[in-house]
Amino acid sequence: MKSYPDVLADLINCFRKLPGIGEKSAERMALSLLELSTDDVETFAASMIDSKNNLHTCPICGHITDKEVCDICSNEKRDKNVICILEDYKSVFAFEKAGNYNGVYHVLNGLISPIDDINPEDINLASLVERVSKLDKPELIIALKSTIEGETTTLYIKKIFEGKNVEISRLSYGIPMGTEIDYLDEITLDRALNDRKKISE
Amino acid sequence: MKSYPDVLADLINCFRKLPGIGEKSAERMALSLLELSTDDVETFAASMIDSKNNLHTCPICGHITDKEVCDICSNEKRDKNVICILEDYKSVFAFEKAGNYNGVYHVLNGLISPIDDINPEDINLASLVERVSKLDKPELIIALKSTIEGETTTLYIKKIFEGKNVEISRLSYGIPMGTEIDYLDEITLDRALNDRKKISE
Repeated sequence: MKSYPDVLADLINCFRKLPGIGEKSAERMALSLLELSTDDVETFAASMIDSKNNLHTCPICGHITDKEVCDICSNEKRDKNVICILEDYKSVFAFEKAGNYNGVYHVLNGLISPIDDINPEDINLASLVERVSKLDKPELIIALKSTIEGETTTLYIKKIFEGKNVEISRLSYGIPMGTEIDYLDEITLDRALNDRKKISE
Repeated sequence: MKSYPDVLADLINCFRKLPGIGEKSAERMALSLLELSTDDVETFAASMIDSKNNLHTCPICGHITDKEVCDICSNEKRDKNVICILEDYKSVFAFEKAGNYNGVYHVLNGLISPIDDINPEDINLASLVERVSKLDKPELIIALKSTIEGETTTLYIKKIFEGKNVEISRLSYGIPMGTEIDYLDEITLDRALNDRKKISE
């Protein structure tokens, strides 16, 4: 069935390359794009290329940035002794949106996964060791997902810094906000139980 | 709160200009775009500009096309005597997807709306009159939405061709597929009743 003009079909295919965009959404977005002004479309196209070309990883923490060093690492008000370890830069944005964290980050850009042949040297770990060695009173907060890869990486990091006077914690596992207890899967429930918090004095 | 690098914030704003894309979706799409290869991003950007620049309206029917005359008007197998009248080119794609229609189209690119000061001469109607005048046995199928503007336009078209030996019909109003009768709004129910179809012999 050939119903779209070629250039439009190409554009729809481009939108479909974005994760989570199905055929229907891609069509809707491509058609909407045609309704923007020529200026807006040109700005949009230029902005795509700018983002792709001008963003690179921060040499200190591995987050993406358009500056030499990212805004978080260069912010004097952030506590450089507290480093939150994350899998990817998307998680940094999530943390920054939550807005309550005043330390810095370290983005691994991956997780250790022997099955996929991703070893400790394949992720951004070496620079973490160097970074921590320069700190007076380092504290690491490991915020990785609770999968085999996330936990393997957590354990590996714990092992690297063993006996080196580094305070290490991980995020608590537990019940997400607003979720009914009876809808929780068994593993989450089990972990929420293990991570339970004392509320009595 | 400034958490995104400037170029990325710009890109997110571009995505937000697409109708129906909220902040969360725009962020998700901009971040996904960064994960495409540089080649893919360049193709995407070029494709946007190509679509915007190379698509124009078909001089015969008003549909969008990247050729001189659109694929539907230039298709010898389509019945040129049957013209389906639509509000916009998006509706043409919807009809073509349904796939059962073998006539041609006429895209009005608007509907008559005295309130918004859109008069008959502001929409693509003059060329319809000329087009129909050249046909042997013209049949018009009016497929406009059932709003005041849609119905005003339908009545206007009916009036133009009165006494000119043109067969005119409109799409039936009625119950959409899969909808429970008790969830239908009164107007739809009333119209479905008026457009009822005899099924006895």
